[in-house]
Amino acid sequence: MTFPAPLTGVVPPVCTPLTPDREVDVPSLLRLVEHLVEGGVHGLFVLGSTSEAAFLTDRQRRLVVETVVGHIGAQLPVLAGAIDMTTPRVLDHVTAVTAAGAQAVVVTAPFYARTHPSEIVHHYRRIAAASPVPVIAYDIPVAVHTKLPAELVLGLAADGVLAGLKDSSGDLAAFREVVTGARAHAGFSVLTGSELTVDSALALGADGAVPGLANVDPHGYVRLYRLCRAGDWEAARSEQERLCALFGMVGVGDPARMGTSSSAIGAFKAALHLRGIIDCAVTAEPQVPLSGDEVAKVGKFLAGAGLL
Amino acid sequence: MTFPAPLTGVVPPVCTPLTPDREVDVPSLLRLVEHLVEGGVHGLFVLGSTSEAAFLTDRQRRLVVETVVGHIGAQLPVLAGAIDMTTPRVLDHVTAVTAAGAQAVVVTAPFYARTHPSEIVHHYRRIAAASPVPVIAYDIPVAVHTKLPAELVLGLAADGVLAGLKDSSGDLAAFREVVTGARAHAGFSVLTGSELTVDSALALGADGAVPGLANVDPHGYVRLYRLCRAGDWEAARSEQERLCALFGMVGVGDPARMGTSSSAIGAFKAALHLRGIIDCAVTAEPQVPLSGDEVAKVGKFLAGAGLL
Amino acid sequence: MTFPAPLTGVVPPVCTPLTPDREVDVPSLLRLVEHLVEGGVHGLFVLGSTSEAAFLTDRQRRLVVETVVGHIGAQLPVLAGAIDMTTPRVLDHVTAVTAAGAQAVVVTAPFYARTHPSEIVHHYRRIAAASPVPVIAYDIPVAVHTKLPAELVLGLAADGVLAGLKDSSGDLAAFREVVTGARAHAGFSVLTGSELTVDSALALGADGAVPGLANVDPHGYVRLYRLCRAGDWEAARSEQERLCALFGMVGVGDPARMGTSSSAIGAFKAALHLRGIIDCAVTAEPQVPLSGDEVAKVGKFLAGAGLL
Amino acid sequence: MTFPAPLTGVVPPVCTPLTPDREVDVPSLLRLVEHLVEGGVHGLFVLGSTSEAAFLTDRQRRLVVETVVGHIGAQLPVLAGAIDMTTPRVLDHVTAVTAAGAQAVVVTAPFYARTHPSEIVHHYRRIAAASPVPVIAYDIPVAVHTKLPAELVLGLAADGVLAGLKDSSGDLAAFREVVTGARAHAGFSVLTGSELTVDSALALGADGAVPGLANVDPHGYVRLYRLCRAGDWEAARSEQERLCALFGMVGVGDPARMGTSSSAIGAFKAALHLRGIIDCAVTAEPQVPLSGDEVAKVGKFLAGAGLL
Repeated sequence: MTFPAPLTGVVPPVCTPLTPDREVDVPSLLRLVEHLVEGGVHGLFVLGSTSEAAFLTDRQRRLVVETVVGHIGAQLPVLAGAIDMTTPRVLDHVTAVTAAGAQAVVVTAPFYARTHPSEIVHHYRRIAAASPVPVIAYDIPVAVHTKLPAELVLGLAADGVLAGLKDSSGDLAAFREVVTGARAHAGFSVLTGSELTVDSALALGADGAVPGLANVDPHGYVRLYRLCRAGDWEAARSEQERLCALFGMVGVGDPARMGTSSSAIGAFKAALHLRGIIDCAVTAEPQVPLSGDEVAKVGKFLAGAGLL
Repeated sequence: MTFPAPLTGVVPPVCTPLTPDREVDVPSLLRLVEHLVEGGVHGLFVLGSTSEAAFLTDRQRRLVVETVVGHIGAQLPVLAGAIDMTTPRVLDHVTAVTAAGAQAVVVTAPFYARTHPSEIVHHYRRIAAASPVPVIAYDIPVAVHTKLPAELVLGLAADGVLAGLKDSSGDLAAFREVVTGARAHAGFSVLTGSELTVDSALALGADGAVPGLANVDPHGYVRLYRLCRAGDWEAARSEQERLCALFGMVGVGDPARMGTSSSAIGAFKAALHLRGIIDCAVTAEPQVPLSGDEVAKVGKFLAGAGLL
Repeated sequence: MTFPAPLTGVVPPVCTPLTPDREVDVPSLLRLVEHLVEGGVHGLFVLGSTSEAAFLTDRQRRLVVETVVGHIGAQLPVLAGAIDMTTPRVLDHVTAVTAAGAQAVVVTAPFYARTHPSEIVHHYRRIAAASPVPVIAYDIPVAVHTKLPAELVLGLAADGVLAGLKDSSGDLAAFREVVTGARAHAGFSVLTGSELTVDSALALGADGAVPGLANVDPHGYVRLYRLCRAGDWEAARSEQERLCALFGMVGVGDPARMGTSSSAIGAFKAALHLRGIIDCAVTAEPQVPLSGDEVAKVGKFLAGAGLL
Repeated sequence: MTFPAPLTGVVPPVCTPLTPDREVDVPSLLRLVEHLVEGGVHGLFVLGSTSEAAFLTDRQRRLVVETVVGHIGAQLPVLAGAIDMTTPRVLDHVTAVTAAGAQAVVVTAPFYARTHPSEIVHHYRRIAAASPVPVIAYDIPVAVHTKLPAELVLGLAADGVLAGLKDSSGDLAAFREVVTGARAHAGFSVLTGSELTVDSALALGADGAVPGLANVDPHGYVRLYRLCRAGDWEAARSEQERLCALFGMVGVGDPARMGTSSSAIGAFKAALHLRGIIDCAVTAEPQVPLSGDEVAKVGKFLAGAGLL
């Protein structure tokens, strides 16, 4: 399939179900993909942060892409994260995920190494030059400790280096600057990574959303997307607020016992397990599992949103 | 060889010379190792931050360890970094570098994923359980954005999980807490990663140092170590101050044009090239090369320290 | 006058014009107030960050409040910042600004001293207990290095401690949590401090906005507010985008020569001077003045927005 | 008295004892000053961070300086903090504390307002030009969120703007750069604010120390200073380690209930109360008081150090 330019709609970052001994659970992954397709999503993003890409070995990453691409075929565009510290290591992942069939790669700024805007620019240029598929920038300061400046992204869009931006920065004002500026660059896709302000992002002109919570409730996000596209902002706000309440599940984990990643990804997986979509809610190491009480709270969030 | 417990002395994080097309330059790497051995160092740390481990592909990392271990044999202990984001990925590196002959592994806290002290503890426990060689914790907040708390390190030392600490945090007060506390744990090695306060660290009881600048001037750091061990603090201070002046080279790169990693590693490699030890001063991508003027400034630092 | 509950509409943080020798320029301040009133604003916020409250002496702060309140009478509500490091010092400012006639006080979390959520709660409780007028929380992490958690704000709203929130955090998702939660607390006012996402904030239910740029173009922000209230989101977006372009003026200052405060407040004052509203564009020390070229760029932003 | 150039020795940041209703407890303050003088200290620093300057009203600050200067006369140099956000406000404090008799002022970088190195330089130049007494820079990034660069401090030392540096940054390598560079500027005083590495700082050439814990054990720090000056580094290390163990008291406060300031200053005041020096251990608002159990732990630290 031709990769859409611009990519639009709801593109969930697909969770990676694991077996109790922490191997990729292929049947559960396929059921999750079916659940998302049935929910009406417009694309699939594998190996993102919500997919626990940072925790998967190279072998597991490859298996995830092959599994999803092999199953979905040309039905939906499949984007894959190529998450690593620096240019040479990212290039190896680009080779691996495109060989496995990914139709676009999603790449962060360098991390671990201290970096500089001119180095970030060079990073994206080198990767785009080597990649057989479009490159989408992934702005996620909470993970890489750098914010991609709007003018940097727009400069690379103008030069055809980047095909889009997935913005998980939470900074809507900077996001707006990219959305507005990108109107000059036909085909460039601006996607929000937020679960909580999808209506706001679409209202100001975003092309779509990549919400982790769409694993749990794809129908809700697709409904929200359609309401926004139809200009029914009142109904959109109401649907968004229902999803905001559901998102409260990411806080069930005791902060004295675990980090926010353990809590949020643990909650998404517990919800998928409670909804009968995946077999096992385990997360990758060194993340801490939710307790029984915490899982019960996830169930209450599902019930409150009409999903149980 | 048996890995020393505790490891003591000067253990440089070995730079990784590259060819102009950014492959590992094996002959230059061997000359650099010879230069360090001749300088009297007490061990070699490959695949650390100064080694550009974050920039090397898995294939390159393996080649570095094989080259250095193959050459040095049982002459000196060789430690290898297993630098990656999370437990499963670090475990793969531990397997690779120990298969290639590394006698200890050096491991940071998880990064990219948001983390929690209990998750860091679990991370080190899992890695130590799986590693055939001693595990040394690598505290480098500037890269991983977490500081290893002293009590966490001491707890893992008490349980025999960790064999040592390489502290690149720059926080001497916290370092002292580990040094003092570690006296209860025979064989635990506390090493400073600082170039600039080696005399201070040794005076308060550290076992050794892992200074990146020792690539350029191993004789100086070995001399400094011996003066400290002999209790000749006046002469030690004088040698340390000479090395501090030499370290000024890390600032030659224009901050409007490059990050601190490009400048510092670029300067070390330029110095090694000017001293005739490596063939090419190129750094890995996306780092920015030093200009001719900036390299000339490196030369002045070398001349000022009596090294040219 | 009775202070409105909730406060709604456009409430500019009023710039503090200074004379060339950096005294409060009372005639210019009165002209600025007239300009804002004529623009249709719904209240005035003096001694905020845009007012350079951090730079004004106690004597100057008092003069500002007396001047504005004395002029405006009961025409519009006047809020005053009580910006200082800790509870006892803030209490002194509350006494001073309410004696001078302020009808509400705006208070940040403690700063300089390291703080804790329980201490922030105690801070607001003590201040509200002592204040003769309503207390509005001021969430400005870029200045105080703490983000007010939504649940903390909502807890204090529920207890009647806080009468509102001015949110300058830039985090629209957290802002939404307060807006949604505050529906349970009649009379509580949720105001955005952003210049760039006023339409988004109002669309999700905010009561009003406190945009620094409204000094320069009050008519624009009042128009934007009315369009949002009328549900004309297309026209609102267009007006907001015009104001976003105008806001570009805050970046005219050379970052090699000055900080963002010098540049942004310098630009607002230069614009007010170019529009003939204030006599002198000088900012308080140690801020750096804009160059002639930089002021010329401010003029181009004004021209581009149809304001010159 | 002439202010010493350079100032050397142990210069405690004097705690500010409060009454139960949080007024300055003058008799306790005088007893504390006597305790410090009797301990052999070389100067007194009032209105520093450990003095809770950030929490004291202007009236209370004046009372502290008048009380201490009135009592101590020309016996010892008295330095006073002039802690506020920006140049005009700091200048008011400089006027107040020098009118009350302070012989030097201690001034941080601007805070709350975002700042830039050129603005920090201008800040110190303006203050020094207006101050009738020497100005000492106070580097405390944990409070003001800016680190004073070594070259900035040395440039202002060279120009005679600054008379010294109190470094509470915890960055010994940067501190060393100032110490080494300041040898060219006779009379410039470089003081460490650390409690835990005083021996290290003196060994590399510092002039003295400003340790908050010296309120509790002035004799210990004076002994440590003398041992360092005598070059008896073994005995110095032993004394320093005793003081490090005593400093553990700053961690008695439950981090789930209070911030580090409440815990550390609370512990110092509890220790002074337990030692019979001050009447009441209360801290300023919004700090949280230590519980009875936490105070008991302070007592154990005192007993362990031979002070009860």
